[in-house]
Amino acid sequence: MAKCYLGIDLGGTEVKIAVVNSRGKIVDEASISQTNGYSPETLVRRIIEKARALRGFESVCGTGVGVAGDIDQKKGVVRFSPNLNKWKNIKLRNLLRPYLKGPIVIDNDANAAALGAYFLDAKTKAKNIVCVTLGTGVGGGIILDGRIYRGATGTAGEIGHIHYDADGPKCNCGSRGCIEAYAGAPRIVEAGKKIKSAILRKMLAGNMGNLNPKILQEAASRGDPAARKLWKETGAKLGVIFADLVNLLNPEMIIISGGISRANKLLTGPIKSTVLRRAFKTPARACKIVVSKFTNKLGVVGAALLAQ
Amino acid sequence: MAKCYLGIDLGGTEVKIAVVNSRGKIVDEASISQTNGYSPETLVRRIIEKARALRGFESVCGTGVGVAGDIDQKKGVVRFSPNLNKWKNIKLRNLLRPYLKGPIVIDNDANAAALGAYFLDAKTKAKNIVCVTLGTGVGGGIILDGRIYRGATGTAGEIGHIHYDADGPKCNCGSRGCIEAYAGAPRIVEAGKKIKSAILRKMLAGNMGNLNPKILQEAASRGDPAARKLWKETGAKLGVIFADLVNLLNPEMIIISGGISRANKLLTGPIKSTVLRRAFKTPARACKIVVSKFTNKLGVVGAALLAQ
Repeated sequence: MAKCYLGIDLGGTEVKIAVVNSRGKIVDEASISQTNGYSPETLVRRIIEKARALRGFESVCGTGVGVAGDIDQKKGVVRFSPNLNKWKNIKLRNLLRPYLKGPIVIDNDANAAALGAYFLDAKTKAKNIVCVTLGTGVGGGIILDGRIYRGATGTAGEIGHIHYDADGPKCNCGSRGCIEAYAGAPRIVEAGKKIKSAILRKMLAGNMGNLNPKILQEAASRGDPAARKLWKETGAKLGVIFADLVNLLNPEMIIISGGISRANKLLTGPIKSTVLRRAFKTPARACKIVVSKFTNKLGVVGAALLAQ
Repeated sequence: MAKCYLGIDLGGTEVKIAVVNSRGKIVDEASISQTNGYSPETLVRRIIEKARALRGFESVCGTGVGVAGDIDQKKGVVRFSPNLNKWKNIKLRNLLRPYLKGPIVIDNDANAAALGAYFLDAKTKAKNIVCVTLGTGVGGGIILDGRIYRGATGTAGEIGHIHYDADGPKCNCGSRGCIEAYAGAPRIVEAGKKIKSAILRKMLAGNMGNLNPKILQEAASRGDPAARKLWKETGAKLGVIFADLVNLLNPEMIIISGGISRANKLLTGPIKSTVLRRAFKTPARACKIVVSKFTNKLGVVGAALLAQ
């Protein structure tokens, strides 16, 4: 079998594991749910058990791991991961080392996803791309000239913390008015709860506490004007940040992934029209803005390709 | 003599010409003032006359030109330059070709300045830098891994058109609330004219029409509280955009140049404190924010080094 890579996407509630070929195609995959109870050592052992059972594992010549949090890419250390039982300074590369052949690369999950989008969505044809992950937070990864751009201390790509309005609401990062403080899932739900909508009320049987982005999306799809307006406004705000990205980085593509990206045209419509209105014409027209067709695979495929 | 490069900084009111060595040191230099009356052909002939008289010209093995405006770097064409008698689609490389040995590179003046800052201010030690030029407009150039980052269509680095407030004042680019609409020299002067200040009034002998950024800077240096407040607010606004740059690009340095940068600590003070408050801690601490020590040379030195 041709060269393969092991990808590990270490999320807060699930670990995805896959053997991936050099073009980003998944050969075989598995997952572990409910990771939160495990110590790092136990989790690593469970991951290795699962990995060894995967087709193609014997051809693996390198491993990549994507982890949400603050990663020391050079040392292979998870400095801090808020989702993983508050992991602190875990030498993840050293823990994996005894079980695996070839290089082991640990990186931020947003960087891994961007690399996944570069292979799967951009098909390595667009060389400068930005991947924006819309979920609980707004994450980002930058690929320049076909490689992850990491910056001076490995923290580049924090798209969620570009300011939309310096006087805006408090953001988890400590600043105010970052786009995450408007377009993160909890903020969208919060805004949704203020909507007066008969359709939404009916869908939720009056219990607005159960509101989530998927329901807001469905309400909009059913034609609920208030829900449509909410997505339009969220898209317009994201569009201002996308215009910043277009003016600053002039990428060939911006690829949107993550749970919120399921809203699809409800978001991309206002995003695109805002970019065309606000960014410079030449780079705006040159930039394709798309929802990833591989949202659930970007992280694990990108992780594997980190090792390539 | 060692290898040298010819740099041409084609500004609206002045052309700077210099022979520069491979480390960015000026061997000899000259200038032409009042360029606006000349046709492109005449201006090129005058530039060549001046260049031939420079010490080290015989060792020139490549030429770079920085031009304000929309440049087709690949074709060596000035698509449009607002400052140069509205040059349109001028094949500048072809015009220079008969007179010069070696490669001829035409690029945006902000990119040239960024390359100049990389050699002169960063001394090629910081590999990822952003150069922000504060003048009539707010310009920018990005150096990543020691090379100019141009993006998909050569227009990357438009830092002046990152949005500070999407609902803010109209910007020349067609959008609203770009940082240039707050921190461009005309906007600073406009805000200055609204200041009630006895010191300023005295300095201008009552004629506020003569107000310019230099006078506003002097008033602040003399302790005028209103002028100090104006610089502080301008710096705080720029600081929000710098925090965006730090979060997104995680550069080792941001170097400020241009006429407005003479305000120095009046600006860098509030810029730095805003970045530390608003950007992620690790990249904020890792990023040196400085005023260029070579503002007047960045353009011509960077232009020369384009050809290296």
